[in-house]
Amino acid sequence: MPSVSPSLAERMSSLASAVNDALDRVLPRSDFAESRLFDAMRYGALSGGKRLRPFLVMSSAALFGVNEECALRTAVAVECVHCYSLIHDDLPAMDNSDLRRGKPTVHKQYDEATAILAGDGLLTLAFEILADTRTHEDPKVRCGLISALSKAAGASGMVGGQMLDLVAENAELDIGAITRLQRMKTGELIAFSAEAGGILGKASPAHLSALRAYAHDLGLAFQIIDDLLDAEGSEEETGKSVGRDAKAGKATFVTILGLERARQQARLLSEQAIRHLGAFDGRAQNLEDIARFVVDRNK
Amino acid sequence: MPSVSPSLAERMSSLASAVNDALDRVLPRSDFAESRLFDAMRYGALSGGKRLRPFLVMSSAALFGVNEECALRTAVAVECVHCYSLIHDDLPAMDNSDLRRGKPTVHKQYDEATAILAGDGLLTLAFEILADTRTHEDPKVRCGLISALSKAAGASGMVGGQMLDLVAENAELDIGAITRLQRMKTGELIAFSAEAGGILGKASPAHLSALRAYAHDLGLAFQIIDDLLDAEGSEEETGKSVGRDAKAGKATFVTILGLERARQQARLLSEQAIRHLGAFDGRAQNLEDIARFVVDRNK
Repeated sequence: MPSVSPSLAERMSSLASAVNDALDRVLPRSDFAESRLFDAMRYGALSGGKRLRPFLVMSSAALFGVNEECALRTAVAVECVHCYSLIHDDLPAMDNSDLRRGKPTVHKQYDEATAILAGDGLLTLAFEILADTRTHEDPKVRCGLISALSKAAGASGMVGGQMLDLVAENAELDIGAITRLQRMKTGELIAFSAEAGGILGKASPAHLSALRAYAHDLGLAFQIIDDLLDAEGSEEETGKSVGRDAKAGKATFVTILGLERARQQARLLSEQAIRHLGAFDGRAQNLEDIARFVVDRNK
Repeated sequence: MPSVSPSLAERMSSLASAVNDALDRVLPRSDFAESRLFDAMRYGALSGGKRLRPFLVMSSAALFGVNEECALRTAVAVECVHCYSLIHDDLPAMDNSDLRRGKPTVHKQYDEATAILAGDGLLTLAFEILADTRTHEDPKVRCGLISALSKAAGASGMVGGQMLDLVAENAELDIGAITRLQRMKTGELIAFSAEAGGILGKASPAHLSALRAYAHDLGLAFQIIDDLLDAEGSEEETGKSVGRDAKAGKATFVTILGLERARQQARLLSEQAIRHLGAFDGRAQNLEDIARFVVDRNK
């Protein structure tokens, strides 16, 4: 696979470390017995990852000249939600994964009860961060963020998508049903990430919907590549368990479309995502680059 | 045990049915495959309960002339958080309870994965409800509610208390540690419930802290009676599994203080709670009544 341009890789890595620092500042510490929970939250949130969603928040916020500290706090809130969802998804009762980002999953490193609570704590922390005046001086903007995030993450978004994913193990899904599933399971939070910069920057409805349309195409492209990596990648390369969809007999973009058409579809979606950025007259370079990156990545 | 005065019982039961109706309106429905999730959320949230927290919200809101619909939405959000915590606490990895309010727990009625997701969905829904303009026209008030609720429910509040509770199974706790544990596990959300009406009504700091002080004493009294019911009550009476603390060798107010001193302590806390209501010059009758009720209840 072609490698990502050094400058985007550098920008992503520098943002990832800023996100780590910000998470480190915002995650609670304790000398009391509940420190086990705080440690597990830190373990689940600080153990790397591409930080794609924070990158989308920061890049969209930059389009509207949003204060960087505000954008970073919003990025961290989204990442808390993303990390909580991974912790819960990995649980024995759900995907039962032992490995995440090359390390034991939270319930493997700690235990199942601690993992459930660590996820609950991270989800709750996301809303605490967004409600804080430091995230935006205008409470209407803060409520806008909370409202959009709760819808993206809740029963009609990510949590509902995860339910569909579990149901899908015993059902025959067609391409439409899989698209809907993935749109809910990962697409809505990715869409929120891109939209969040616009909410912070009080963007016009036209700009907000361009960001959402971009992110929805990006999210689907991202998921198709995830399915491809699960089918083709190695554990060493991806840092997580692979071949799990096939083992579970789960219908994915790849099992329905086949490897070649799936890859083609991801590229088309990526190009379509970039076209939505036309609304920003070439100023959305980061968002363009990331749309190319998600289809070229190998982990 | 002496029975609760009919008028309070009537007021509580009428509020409980208003809360049920409001929950019913706010809980999502779907004809798609994710309906299993929505059904489980409804099952976990609509299957009765005393609705103590909503009653505190409505009663404190009434002190400041808050619009009833706004108060009811806030009450419903708190109850979503309470019900999510019960669903997760009952899971096999946590308290492993089969029975709740006389019915199978959510993971028994559905399955473990669905129960985890139903809890996640209810927690997220609580913040969606609070961020909505219908909960209060002033976004600063909505942010105030979200901020206070997230702190009460999060790692330094309810979730942290649940962690302490798990750790406590293998530790020797003294009365101070148990008080701290219960203050986090149940006290903070009860305190938020009483404070919420004040936040909605833009109460003075003095009134807010009177409400919090009242609710903290109330919460501890409530918990001591819970421990007493676990030690003395029957499954038929309480509608949930009993004798579980003793079986787990868990230190509680009752194991440390003994039955008689525990009951005495609950009464003292209830009287102390009522004294904090002095700030309201006799207008807080509902809150006074509930403080008497929690120590006289038998389920």
